[in-house]
Amino acid sequence: MTPIGSKVFNRKDRACVDTLRLLAVDMVEKAKSGHPGFPLGAAPMAYVLWARFLRHDPSRPDWPDRDRFVLSAGHGSALLYAFLHLAGYGLTMDDLKNFRQWGSPTPGHPERGLTPGVEATTGPLGHGMAMGVGLALAERHMAARFNRPGFAIFDHHTYALVSDGDLMEGVASEAASLAGNQGLGKLIYLYDSNDMTIEGHASLTFSEDVRVRFTAYNWHVSLVSDGEDLQSVKVALDAAKQETDRPTLIICRTKLGAGSPKEDTPGAHGEPLGAEGLSATRAHYGYGDKGPFFVDERVAKHFREQAQARAAARARWEETLAAYGREHPVLAAELKRRLGALLPDGLDQALAASARAAFPKGASVATRVASGKAINILAKSLPELIGGSADLAPSNKTLIEGEDFVGALRPDARNFHFGVREQGMGAILNGLALHGGLIPYGGTFLVFSDFLRPAVRLSALMAQKVVYVLTHDSVGVGEDGPTHQPVEHLAALRAIPDLVVMRPADAHETVAAWGLAVAGPGPTALILSRQNLPTLHPDEYPMVTEGVAKGAYVLSPSEGPEPGAIIVATGSEVHLALAAQGLLRGKRDVRVVSMPSWELFERQPAGYKETVFPAAVTRRLALEAGRAMGWERYAGPGGKILSIETFGRSAPAGVIFGNLGFTAENVARLADSLFG
Amino acid sequence: MTPIGSKVFNRKDRACVDTLRLLAVDMVEKAKSGHPGFPLGAAPMAYVLWARFLRHDPSRPDWPDRDRFVLSAGHGSALLYAFLHLAGYGLTMDDLKNFRQWGSPTPGHPERGLTPGVEATTGPLGHGMAMGVGLALAERHMAARFNRPGFAIFDHHTYALVSDGDLMEGVASEAASLAGNQGLGKLIYLYDSNDMTIEGHASLTFSEDVRVRFTAYNWHVSLVSDGEDLQSVKVALDAAKQETDRPTLIICRTKLGAGSPKEDTPGAHGEPLGAEGLSATRAHYGYGDKGPFFVDERVAKHFREQAQARAAARARWEETLAAYGREHPVLAAELKRRLGALLPDGLDQALAASARAAFPKGASVATRVASGKAINILAKSLPELIGGSADLAPSNKTLIEGEDFVGALRPDARNFHFGVREQGMGAILNGLALHGGLIPYGGTFLVFSDFLRPAVRLSALMAQKVVYVLTHDSVGVGEDGPTHQPVEHLAALRAIPDLVVMRPADAHETVAAWGLAVAGPGPTALILSRQNLPTLHPDEYPMVTEGVAKGAYVLSPSEGPEPGAIIVATGSEVHLALAAQGLLRGKRDVRVVSMPSWELFERQPAGYKETVFPAAVTRRLALEAGRAMGWERYAGPGGKILSIETFGRSAPAGVIFGNLGFTAENVARLADSLFG
Repeated sequence: MTPIGSKVFNRKDRACVDTLRLLAVDMVEKAKSGHPGFPLGAAPMAYVLWARFLRHDPSRPDWPDRDRFVLSAGHGSALLYAFLHLAGYGLTMDDLKNFRQWGSPTPGHPERGLTPGVEATTGPLGHGMAMGVGLALAERHMAARFNRPGFAIFDHHTYALVSDGDLMEGVASEAASLAGNQGLGKLIYLYDSNDMTIEGHASLTFSEDVRVRFTAYNWHVSLVSDGEDLQSVKVALDAAKQETDRPTLIICRTKLGAGSPKEDTPGAHGEPLGAEGLSATRAHYGYGDKGPFFVDERVAKHFREQAQARAAARARWEETLAAYGREHPVLAAELKRRLGALLPDGLDQALAASARAAFPKGASVATRVASGKAINILAKSLPELIGGSADLAPSNKTLIEGEDFVGALRPDARNFHFGVREQGMGAILNGLALHGGLIPYGGTFLVFSDFLRPAVRLSALMAQKVVYVLTHDSVGVGEDGPTHQPVEHLAALRAIPDLVVMRPADAHETVAAWGLAVAGPGPTALILSRQNLPTLHPDEYPMVTEGVAKGAYVLSPSEGPEPGAIIVATGSEVHLALAAQGLLRGKRDVRVVSMPSWELFERQPAGYKETVFPAAVTRRLALEAGRAMGWERYAGPGGKILSIETFGRSAPAGVIFGNLGFTAENVARLADSLFG
Repeated sequence: MTPIGSKVFNRKDRACVDTLRLLAVDMVEKAKSGHPGFPLGAAPMAYVLWARFLRHDPSRPDWPDRDRFVLSAGHGSALLYAFLHLAGYGLTMDDLKNFRQWGSPTPGHPERGLTPGVEATTGPLGHGMAMGVGLALAERHMAARFNRPGFAIFDHHTYALVSDGDLMEGVASEAASLAGNQGLGKLIYLYDSNDMTIEGHASLTFSEDVRVRFTAYNWHVSLVSDGEDLQSVKVALDAAKQETDRPTLIICRTKLGAGSPKEDTPGAHGEPLGAEGLSATRAHYGYGDKGPFFVDERVAKHFREQAQARAAARARWEETLAAYGREHPVLAAELKRRLGALLPDGLDQALAASARAAFPKGASVATRVASGKAINILAKSLPELIGGSADLAPSNKTLIEGEDFVGALRPDARNFHFGVREQGMGAILNGLALHGGLIPYGGTFLVFSDFLRPAVRLSALMAQKVVYVLTHDSVGVGEDGPTHQPVEHLAALRAIPDLVVMRPADAHETVAAWGLAVAGPGPTALILSRQNLPTLHPDEYPMVTEGVAKGAYVLSPSEGPEPGAIIVATGSEVHLALAAQGLLRGKRDVRVVSMPSWELFERQPAGYKETVFPAAVTRRLALEAGRAMGWERYAGPGGKILSIETFGRSAPAGVIFGNLGFTAENVARLADSLFG
């Protein structure tokens, strides 16, 4: 290969590289914790990428057409912060000195939203790599939807720095296989191949041929045999940009902790070098006479100049955008709305009206089916709604009708085949959301939300608007048996901070829940039934739509002003509560509360909460076909909980519900027993 | 390739194959649910394996040296049940007719423990494939430990039937990479490559070159281009047995729903064929004149004869074992103990005595360090204890000192390098446990238990004695920040039925917890601190060991007989409770309850529970550095909960605890406030 558009590297570049790596190890040393090994080894490749390739503007970290860079090896955060400081992202030298301290913008692992220039929260290995796939899919889709001849509004690359640990994680395999299938030509990963993991030489457990494996996935793979050789890294990156039909993995051979006394040993990974080690490292790079946090003025200037040179591209882009606004005003307005994460006016009303028409009184509809309908209603007004399923679309009802499937030849399509890759799907949804301009959703069975969890946690931690469509929500799954019947999953999802979990009781609650989910701001898990459920029509239950937004509401009041008891339930069990209320009529005066979302209810003012669960009414029965854990809060000391505390069984759903006491008669009996 | 030891297949074999596939679709039809597609396509390869290769004895499904067979494509359960019926495993024709019904031994997906001959609970894709790797590692280890010249006590293969969906799952990639690294020559997988998934042709999302990918993992890969060709399958299986240095993947090209009107369409996957479709299918295989559940007597006889022929091997093995008992009586006794899952006598006492010596009064020890010590104490008496970490051994303290690492050249070793593959590790631990003779454990950070969950659920569902060592258990992780700080994970793990979660407060509780974990019978999650904690020495706190077994106990009583308030805590927060008790002394008379395990406490009789949490004492403060969810049960209506309801922060641990109110002073203040 010959250098393409080459500009040779000089001593100033080398000084920049060494400044990056020494700043990083100084940060780790000062914090008395962190990871010096990765920055020392990966600084050269990172520098070439950042200084010579990355299309970005430090003054506008939210520039929509910037290249995306993900540090999948999140433990190398110090290296990234050193760069963000030098490039002018607003991180000060004091911020670097406050690495890993309370309230600083330089936490132990990069956190999206906290630090300008950090595209994704990373640290859980494999996920940065998989989110990059989502970012690249988003770019290709947005380009296909918005670019017009002469107006390349979206034309950027997605880069990531990945490590041995990333490549070992299954989620990375899932995403890599899909990226190859999709032919993501603008996805370029630098693989810091130092053959060293925490427990020792990677070959102890990781002896596979990565080059061959990624070739099997349909990736373009190249090798830089000396990761210190800036020119070779540049040549490989140039070649990667030339390859437009496949993603690229550039394997860069490096040494963990390069230049330190612990070079090429596992000890270099996760502990400060120590005063002596640091001193030796500094001397190795020719800075033996300098103190910590040293930045030569020429180096600082060089970084600023490089950033300015790249920022010029942003100015040209702004001009293009302005012209685009004149030439294509409707598209431009739509783009602005989507990038601003604004919903079209009147969406909620349109949604409620469509639902009234679609789900008449007396209808019986599975909430997964209602969800499918909601997706299709929303999809008409929200072109940013895009998603699919982990190979369960016919069951999850995730298909947008009239739209094609996303692929290399249909980048503009809106349906995804994610394959049987739940965790990869979750990470890709995060990437799609991080890009901007899209509201991604993904479906699987609720029981397989276990596979999704690491991704759901990151959605919540990054406050990304991702909608998880989790169907087949209880032992109502029936014959597929305990491997497919969620029992603990509602509790486990509710445990995740900043995730809104909603289990609607019927089609109208489902549509309302979808309306809230696309409004965001954070992630939502929709928990949906396999089986049909009666419709709670707004004519009969006027609070339905408004009630969902409050998390819990009085669905069916008691006859008298003060109820004798409250039955509270979610999802399919709400109908058991209503039936039990009917059975008890005349004998016991019962209120039925539908509680689709604990999280939304907890956000309500105390006054509203009191109207739903008056403190004076201590006879309460909570119903949910899952573990009781946490329901004590709402059942209260005088209450009871009808739950499922064991794994399920393989049998028709009705048989299981009956045998576990989920019948109207048993619920009525339990409610009656509250009266002592 | 030429056939090895060939015996050609005849019409009787063909009749056996067709009987298997038709029984399976009859079962699905009768149950009105299930998966006809896989059995129709995979029956030929399954038949060749089962009839000509599988070393087994239907009269002794627990024969220790049987070949292990895992149906990783668990949705194909009907095919397996048909075989177990015909081979004489005790499944009756009525059992087949009760497929997927309440109480039948023929549930929707195979369930270990419920059905003789089912080696592993499968259904969550990828996990059967990964458990097979654990089974093969176990066989190799047991052979290395127990076989002696002339006495091949363990010499069996591990087979699995895997599907496209299995190969897409990340967990399968993790396990496959490790299997290649380990050179598992006795692991042989038949891959039913029908190129069809629920959403359509697999190439829509799965276009990778599986052959090349598995070659990269160091697998021996062969291709059977026509999966209906019994002889070709046999040749490939013969060749796989000849390959002793690498695992084998046999890619068998088949058609989903072969012979049915839905052949080669996604519709064949997961719905009954319907009367008409079934009838056409029956006719296709030449049974148009027969009714459902038809078994020709010659076919039945052939299956019985094949099983009997194989069972002869078991008789020979029993003779070998008897001779082994005479020649190597100590080894034989040890083997018997281990296969019976019996612990050596006096283990608990030895453990407690070692702990007293190791952790004196006044010592300060992280519970992860105490866990490491417990592992090493136990490892001396329990050669069946075997495990490792997902590349965090130095942090998780999972190393057995003086033992080597498991590898092709050291199959007898007891430490594993699992690599950065948490989910794969969990599945492999399940496989190790399923084999028999081993107590496997695996470590990672508690926050990454999210990656483990699908495996933990299967450990619980199968009631396997697997120990999960989950360290770095709270915001006490400190500087690594929210991506590494578990907040919701205790709640999420407690939600899993039949899993015992234990969060010990000090070294002595940790050792006691380990004692309980190895006693089983099911899985245990040990939740351990990164940071040092003071020792609760039995001389000072005599209930420590006994108390852990009860789940919760009075660690430090009130001064008077009736406490004014109770502070209950787990793990590191127990020490805050003790400090607060001290601060309040003279003013408020407080009892401190240590509650390492909710699950164990819930198993206690009501009388014991009342002694720990007297109903009359309603002033209660629950402390845990995680989400409050579920603590309402123990705090009660008059109580308070000090918890963490948001994600953590990157800072030194002490700073985080302080800022979140986890100080002795704040705990004392809260306890005091209970008095109004």
